[in-house]
Amino acid sequence: MALVVQKFGGTSVADLDRIRAVADRVARARRNGDQVAVNVSAMAGTTNQLVEWVQAIGGVHYDRAEYDAVVSSGEQVTAGLLALALQAQGLSARSFLGWQAPLSTDDAHGKARVEASDVASLRKSLDQGQIPVLAGFQGVSPDGRITTLGRGGSDTSAVALAAALGADRCDIFTDVEGVYTTDPRIVQKARKIERITYEEMLEMASLGARVLETRSVALAMRHAVRLQVLSSFTDVPGTLVVDEDEILEQQVVSGIAYSRDEAKVTLIGVSDQPGIAASIFGPLADANINVDMIVQSVSADGNTTDVTFTVGRADLERARTILESNQSDLGFRRMDGRGDVVKISVIGVGMRSHAGIAHVMFKALADRDINIQAISTSEIKISILIDEVYTELALRTLHTTYGLDET
Amino acid sequence: MALVVQKFGGTSVADLDRIRAVADRVARARRNGDQVAVNVSAMAGTTNQLVEWVQAIGGVHYDRAEYDAVVSSGEQVTAGLLALALQAQGLSARSFLGWQAPLSTDDAHGKARVEASDVASLRKSLDQGQIPVLAGFQGVSPDGRITTLGRGGSDTSAVALAAALGADRCDIFTDVEGVYTTDPRIVQKARKIERITYEEMLEMASLGARVLETRSVALAMRHAVRLQVLSSFTDVPGTLVVDEDEILEQQVVSGIAYSRDEAKVTLIGVSDQPGIAASIFGPLADANINVDMIVQSVSADGNTTDVTFTVGRADLERARTILESNQSDLGFRRMDGRGDVVKISVIGVGMRSHAGIAHVMFKALADRDINIQAISTSEIKISILIDEVYTELALRTLHTTYGLDET
Repeated sequence: MALVVQKFGGTSVADLDRIRAVADRVARARRNGDQVAVNVSAMAGTTNQLVEWVQAIGGVHYDRAEYDAVVSSGEQVTAGLLALALQAQGLSARSFLGWQAPLSTDDAHGKARVEASDVASLRKSLDQGQIPVLAGFQGVSPDGRITTLGRGGSDTSAVALAAALGADRCDIFTDVEGVYTTDPRIVQKARKIERITYEEMLEMASLGARVLETRSVALAMRHAVRLQVLSSFTDVPGTLVVDEDEILEQQVVSGIAYSRDEAKVTLIGVSDQPGIAASIFGPLADANINVDMIVQSVSADGNTTDVTFTVGRADLERARTILESNQSDLGFRRMDGRGDVVKISVIGVGMRSHAGIAHVMFKALADRDINIQAISTSEIKISILIDEVYTELALRTLHTTYGLDET
Repeated sequence: MALVVQKFGGTSVADLDRIRAVADRVARARRNGDQVAVNVSAMAGTTNQLVEWVQAIGGVHYDRAEYDAVVSSGEQVTAGLLALALQAQGLSARSFLGWQAPLSTDDAHGKARVEASDVASLRKSLDQGQIPVLAGFQGVSPDGRITTLGRGGSDTSAVALAAALGADRCDIFTDVEGVYTTDPRIVQKARKIERITYEEMLEMASLGARVLETRSVALAMRHAVRLQVLSSFTDVPGTLVVDEDEILEQQVVSGIAYSRDEAKVTLIGVSDQPGIAASIFGPLADANINVDMIVQSVSADGNTTDVTFTVGRADLERARTILESNQSDLGFRRMDGRGDVVKISVIGVGMRSHAGIAHVMFKALADRDINIQAISTSEIKISILIDEVYTELALRTLHTTYGLDET
């Protein structure tokens, strides 16, 4: 008898019919002999409505503890309704709010972190043959106030629950059937990945494959929680996110991600002297602007250099203003900022043991006359920056090149 | 410095603008030097929506513990939003849910009773100069689950809060300006009552003056909590509900209530023998049908009698069926049931020391040719049953007769 945590997002519990469908699914798993603990989000749209009210009435610097009290009510409703729907199927079930589980967090309201949690009440519920339904996204602070886990919090609370219970698997039900080798809306030959490692999933998630939030993947990796991403609208197996040694035939490249959230800044004619990088990136860091890919080219005259780097597209104008106001200190001649770029990343733990992956990438893009504007690499990832208009062409080319196409 | 509990119902917090107006009102009281604890209902309409969902998904015999988890979320939202609105005014405020106060109840989910509660967290909040905002209508059961207090529960939780805190007054804000000598929609000369005793208010409340729920008045009486009923839409003093010795010049009659929820049943030709009353009312009691006024008339022949009594109008058809099916046992000749009656009650603690109140009533109605069909009395109340068409005439006549008209 396996113990499975099933997590259902907002679109999966959007209305009473969907909640009943979720109950059907949970009931099937239970009747197949598994122990099931459930984690639910608020009905799609509810959280946004509540956040709107908080902001409208609380102003810009609203009290995050009250935000949490208000916003957490959305999951409270769906947890209760789902418990009722399970009972209507003749199953024993009950709702647990974050403070009842209890799922203990720190007191960083609005973005709390789950702390070691013994979830004693939930375990007792399972031992009694019940299906505990945990309101997702929420916990309780050391001084007994409701907390929410912030962005991606309901995936995270499901994984935390699975870790605390020592569950055999944590199923994340969503509106896609799994993790794909790349975006299937762009590359029709994209394949659903059967198994992917935590590290690869982390890279995919942080690069725009929005099926799982980064924080929840990191938590799953830390606690070795086996994750499955699957659709609550169909009935087929999804993608398993597991430890590397659970994957027998590792592909060299597992997936290709892309991000349109990038912008490129080039400073031309920067005086080439020690400490200039710190002078450029210090003020940006102070303004909380993340800088990603950095390329410094050697100048023709030997006295000046061009520096290219990327920032979040939303930060481009702020970055521009900050750099301009420091122009005399930095001593650059001209600044060029543009948002029409895309970052494309090939990802695979197999890269660790295979050389030449980057070379294959550069050659394939060169064959298509796609110019690479910046490069950055990690142990299991190669990212390049190209002109945005080549997004589709580059993705399709690389997908074929690395043998990922559906056959 | 007085300690006041202010309670705001659903229409008073129906939207963000109304919540801001409530915050204004609380802020004024606080700035006048009073300590204030607030108790809020859910936004008007929210509770109905949640109850509908519970019934739709949980079926007829839904789990009342889950009902409570779902339905209590409405007050959670308004408590948080009101705390935010108070903070936006520069005041220190925080929300408390039932389990946080804590407001301890028994485990009768859906209609829980408040038990002795020390509300330690709330007291601490007040001591720190904060305005605690308690989510009304809810508490926490001995085993840590959310309970709701059922019908009239938010008035009750406000009074329980005031009792637990030893508050100087509990202000119940609603959509009327107070308790009136009679229904001002019918009698234009009805006056707002300045002070009324708990006993009188209990009679008024149980007889259709729906400004306060009976349970909350009984609780206030038991704990000697001074209540004020007033409007959250205007800025004038309301009606104080207090102990008899706080009222210096007691009127003989304080108010006149009426109820259209009555129906009259007459059994004609019942054999006049011992035990017949038990035979009639036993089956009705078994079916949970309340019988109120009972009149037994002497028959002409000495062998049979006519028995008249009232039941709730909603129960008339059920009562009729039950009695008909027992006709042979009861041995009545004919049954007459009609719903077109009204019960009118004059209420006043002064009746205890004044004779002749009933006589004045009967004479005034006789002068108007209004026939009295049944009479019942208590220490502080005389109720009569008349034909419904005379409701307005009787109310106006009695209002003038007892000197209650606005001058």
